[in-house]
Amino acid sequence: MSDTTARELLSRRDRLFGKKTPLFYEDPLHIVRGEGVWLYAADGRRYLDCYNNVAHVGHCDPTVVAAMTQQASTLNTHTRYLHENILDYGERLTATLDGSISMVIFVCTGSEANDQALRIARLHTGGQGVICTNLTYHGNTTAVAEISPHGEESNSPNVRTIPFPDSYRPLDGLEGKALSDAYIDKIKAAIQSFEDSGVGFAGMIVCPIFANEGLPNLPPEFMKKSVSAVHDAGGLFIADEVQAGFGRTGTMWGHEVAGIVPDIVTMGKPMGNGFPLGAVAASAELMQGFRDRVMYFNTFGGNPIAGAVGNAVLDVMERDKLMENARTTGAYLRDGLAALAARHPMIGEIRGHGLWLGIELVRDSNSLEPADTEARDIVNRMKERGILINRIGEHDNVLKLRPPMPFAREHADLVLENLDTVLGNR
Amino acid sequence: MSDTTARELLSRRDRLFGKKTPLFYEDPLHIVRGEGVWLYAADGRRYLDCYNNVAHVGHCDPTVVAAMTQQASTLNTHTRYLHENILDYGERLTATLDGSISMVIFVCTGSEANDQALRIARLHTGGQGVICTNLTYHGNTTAVAEISPHGEESNSPNVRTIPFPDSYRPLDGLEGKALSDAYIDKIKAAIQSFEDSGVGFAGMIVCPIFANEGLPNLPPEFMKKSVSAVHDAGGLFIADEVQAGFGRTGTMWGHEVAGIVPDIVTMGKPMGNGFPLGAVAASAELMQGFRDRVMYFNTFGGNPIAGAVGNAVLDVMERDKLMENARTTGAYLRDGLAALAARHPMIGEIRGHGLWLGIELVRDSNSLEPADTEARDIVNRMKERGILINRIGEHDNVLKLRPPMPFAREHADLVLENLDTVLGNR
Repeated sequence: MSDTTARELLSRRDRLFGKKTPLFYEDPLHIVRGEGVWLYAADGRRYLDCYNNVAHVGHCDPTVVAAMTQQASTLNTHTRYLHENILDYGERLTATLDGSISMVIFVCTGSEANDQALRIARLHTGGQGVICTNLTYHGNTTAVAEISPHGEESNSPNVRTIPFPDSYRPLDGLEGKALSDAYIDKIKAAIQSFEDSGVGFAGMIVCPIFANEGLPNLPPEFMKKSVSAVHDAGGLFIADEVQAGFGRTGTMWGHEVAGIVPDIVTMGKPMGNGFPLGAVAASAELMQGFRDRVMYFNTFGGNPIAGAVGNAVLDVMERDKLMENARTTGAYLRDGLAALAARHPMIGEIRGHGLWLGIELVRDSNSLEPADTEARDIVNRMKERGILINRIGEHDNVLKLRPPMPFAREHADLVLENLDTVLGNR
Repeated sequence: MSDTTARELLSRRDRLFGKKTPLFYEDPLHIVRGEGVWLYAADGRRYLDCYNNVAHVGHCDPTVVAAMTQQASTLNTHTRYLHENILDYGERLTATLDGSISMVIFVCTGSEANDQALRIARLHTGGQGVICTNLTYHGNTTAVAEISPHGEESNSPNVRTIPFPDSYRPLDGLEGKALSDAYIDKIKAAIQSFEDSGVGFAGMIVCPIFANEGLPNLPPEFMKKSVSAVHDAGGLFIADEVQAGFGRTGTMWGHEVAGIVPDIVTMGKPMGNGFPLGAVAASAELMQGFRDRVMYFNTFGGNPIAGAVGNAVLDVMERDKLMENARTTGAYLRDGLAALAARHPMIGEIRGHGLWLGIELVRDSNSLEPADTEARDIVNRMKERGILINRIGEHDNVLKLRPPMPFAREHADLVLENLDTVLGNR
């Protein structure tokens, strides 16, 4: 701990929140100010934020803050009164999705969005069984925690996990079509076991870029075949866009990268630039079916501030061409990382899309032994050098780069220079 | 529908949200501005808000808006970095609770708070069975919807409903101690059935003032006996303070009115004056037990804006003595309603605490036949006269008064005058 204030905050935190409440870094950071891609600590140090996707259009973006303030000063009620904001926003949001997805429910968090998606899928199909991948995290309500196994088997009869699709450490050493078919067979077996147990099949939920799994390159056609397998069995396919969505991949939605159209799309984190805002979108048939059977109302979901903030985030994305920036700066960063990989054999693979990149670190390029403690050390060393990154994946050996979207070439250069040094000094 | 804009908004809403999405009043209101206890519609009409508890310290309170803006312009991250705001707020909040309740988890909504309370209770006890009342509503996640029966039996094996405690239309016509014992017997039978079915017993959750049930006057000692029955069986008692809390009853918490100390307290609606903010509070033992077993993190829960806004709401409550105002203005309003009751036999009973009042309307003071259509009509007639109220209770015949807390005598007078006229014109 670098200073007495931080030590004191940590001890107050332990008393108020409990020990083991999640915290970043071996030496936790006491951050006091944010601006664009920068975070400023209490000791005056400046950190390049390459991690926080919630501050999507930049920390404390003035356009978003102004929209929030203006609306908060004018009116903030809820959706039981008529109001333009949330309709303008909802129409704009659904317009970015496939034409089949035209209705939306606003909520406050990604967990709430995924929880409602499960309710919609279960009510629609009459089945309870949901498939997820074995390393995923979709949130933390009672129902959503069941589909967030963190590498463990779920102990709910309503959930089956399948191994996440991975072409780097492939199932049974398979390749190409045989590999994707092997993963699809796992899905089919899970569906069959739901039918056998009488639980019935409701659907499958994935992050379309498998963010928590370390952004694996997918076996060919895996996503399309998954959707088909789910649909053939009468289930619904849910794309959890809480991490992938809102232009970060260089497309508006992660499922566009995968070339599929899901039945239900859930959203959260980047949506309100830090204002608690989430949503579930689906077809009119699914949504009206839900509304006909369930009295759903979310006190804060879709309130006038949510609409104002949501619209402001889209405004800034359009004005500053942030989705295009994710493509171009993302490509630039990726090229730079490829150049580093040529010099540093620890870099086993560079993965991801746009400004959502993963760097798999291995001890040996043949055995692919995960360089997990090295990854932890690099994350902390980068922090000491003023650059905030983190790590993900099955072995916690994948460096995670997911900066605010105004991340520019000069920031990419800083990451590359420092990563080069940290990797070289090992 | 009063104007073309409202008609158009309603049709856009049906297309985007679906038909049957909850909306207030036969002629929905298109509200464009709020200030203190007043709401202003698009047609220029001003409405006295006697209903919205979310705008707890008043619509668009400038102190709260300023705190939100200042923090949103400075920093908005999450609890994986150290930050003072949420610690200051959390310590201030737990200081208002019984000394046994010292830890808190911040979330974004009342639904999330109740969902986590269920997780904590189930993990701690090892049982799954939860008791709630038959008319309650605790929120809308998959797990919380199970304990929100709206008058129907829950079809979850993990939930049993008991008839809500009511001394106006008492169970089996009983009175006094015999009545409260009859309700307690229902609790004991539910616990026994959980044990018999192998589900095990986790606890009981109630709104301590039974807000959705129409604020019934409770049979003597009902709450104390409930807590004892739950504790005797090894369960936890959860007080859902989402509607009752934050000074509205003239005490800080609804469970103080009831004279009990719950094991878990959940909070939401009024907490952030419209900013999505909720919390679960419990003993260090319960919370640390949860933290030891569950990696719980809420991206937006407890972020620096949540802390700033939460603190500002408490600041305004203290500065303007709003809890005292709930007592004095609440008593004034209640006296005025008692005077109306002498002239209007339709008023069967006046109930509640502080600025949370219910007016039971009956067609006949002997049969107690609920005046439900009359109540609906009165709500709409009051709206036409510029006063927003609503109705609750088993028969939807209880007028509901729950205004923003800066509600003053002059506002109470407006309610009384207009209610007198509307009741007199029937």
